[in-house]
Amino acid sequence: MSFLAALDNAWAASSSMLCVGLDPDLQKLPDGISRDNRGIEDFCRAIIESTADVACAFKPQIAHFAARGAEPQLERICKLIRENHPNVTLILDAKRGDIGSTAEYYAQEAFDRYGAHAVTVNPYMGTDSLEPFLARGAAIVLCRTSNPGGSELQNKMIDGLPVYQHIARTAAETWSKIGQVGLVVGATFPGELAEVRAIAPALPLLVPGIGAQGGDIEATVRAGRDKNNRGMMINSSRAIIYADSSRNFADSARAAAVSTRDAINAVS
Amino acid sequence: MSFLAALDNAWAASSSMLCVGLDPDLQKLPDGISRDNRGIEDFCRAIIESTADVACAFKPQIAHFAARGAEPQLERICKLIRENHPNVTLILDAKRGDIGSTAEYYAQEAFDRYGAHAVTVNPYMGTDSLEPFLARGAAIVLCRTSNPGGSELQNKMIDGLPVYQHIARTAAETWSKIGQVGLVVGATFPGELAEVRAIAPALPLLVPGIGAQGGDIEATVRAGRDKNNRGMMINSSRAIIYADSSRNFADSARAAAVSTRDAINAVS
Repeated sequence: MSFLAALDNAWAASSSMLCVGLDPDLQKLPDGISRDNRGIEDFCRAIIESTADVACAFKPQIAHFAARGAEPQLERICKLIRENHPNVTLILDAKRGDIGSTAEYYAQEAFDRYGAHAVTVNPYMGTDSLEPFLARGAAIVLCRTSNPGGSELQNKMIDGLPVYQHIARTAAETWSKIGQVGLVVGATFPGELAEVRAIAPALPLLVPGIGAQGGDIEATVRAGRDKNNRGMMINSSRAIIYADSSRNFADSARAAAVSTRDAINAVS
Repeated sequence: MSFLAALDNAWAASSSMLCVGLDPDLQKLPDGISRDNRGIEDFCRAIIESTADVACAFKPQIAHFAARGAEPQLERICKLIRENHPNVTLILDAKRGDIGSTAEYYAQEAFDRYGAHAVTVNPYMGTDSLEPFLARGAAIVLCRTSNPGGSELQNKMIDGLPVYQHIARTAAETWSKIGQVGLVVGATFPGELAEVRAIAPALPLLVPGIGAQGGDIEATVRAGRDKNNRGMMINSSRAIIYADSSRNFADSARAAAVSTRDAINAVS
């Protein structure tokens, strides 16, 4: 199933636009979980099992695994998501970007090794650096990021448009004709999120920045939803997975996920 | 030893501005090398031992390892370079870029796990996405890339300058004050390489694109060298490591490396 079909299915099955970010941090693992790679796997498995029915996507952030050599654990976590939770999409958050022949290897990593439906990618190197992802699965392209430095290049004007709007337009007009594409747009700037939605009315938006990063859910949903009242994967990582550092962490993560989903769905 | 000191040392010890790119491709491995992860390690080890004294840098491209789960092999290859060849710098070609808290994990991956002196990074997300690399080792920032799509964003004008020159100026004026920084500028555009050198007279330039990608050595060296007739890591991957598919591949790789180094040094 293609990414867009899987995402449509996931929105319908879960009634949720929540994306649960899997960013395991050894120092934050809850009580009862060992502080090693095995603990990372145990922790992620518990979070996945407790939140899968209220999420449209899981988004493992690969650096949290790669820093510690936990790729085998990431492989098993991804396999668990694909096999046990077919109604949830799997987005590998890797922000890849390289010349075409190298991007082919990164596409193998994302789609063959980890079984991702989609992977986050960086647009700085242009179309040929995205094509292997567009051709083989789906590329979710960095557009307007939620970090402090995001505005440095992304808000500069080119051809009368800020860089991030130029990227949104290229995604909507060019990259979407090559393959399946989405955009990363931070929740910290709802006005800019609305501008991206206007430029790219049909593209799915991956929206980090609610929860720990401070973005407001109501403003985010109003700005980013599509005409079907869907169209977003609203990511929360820390506020859900570290909701509780006790042995009840999985139940607390579920409660945080349900409450976030409900807050998203309550926006009129 | 810092990256810039190590690079100065490497240029002096090897009399070479050649960077040997380690891009192992299972389909291109020479006779006598098994077509598996062990073969990748054996192949890279042989290339390293045969070319280390005529190179200022080795640049493993991480996707070629990550696509196949060959991270343990990459770890051992990097360890070999650092332990047996202290006069050569180690650049992890990973083109990382993410929000600060995630970039910390990528910095751990590059510097702690693989022992790199420097890592290639993508500037799209701005200063805080580069800081962990600048603080802990060195960041070699994508500026003007050699691929077909490189001009799409990089040649757009912002504030009266093409994007790539804006990045070069920010690197020279801002990022170099935070930590150690270099720039990636392709050999396929010598005019643009000369412009970057004028903007950033003191920054080391990692220059891919000679050899298989078609860049001209003489034009590249004239455009990119600094006032000391150094300042470049001129990368060649395929033209050196796949110089010969027979069992003599290591000798042939050495011959190709020597001849490339000599061609670089012959430019008056």
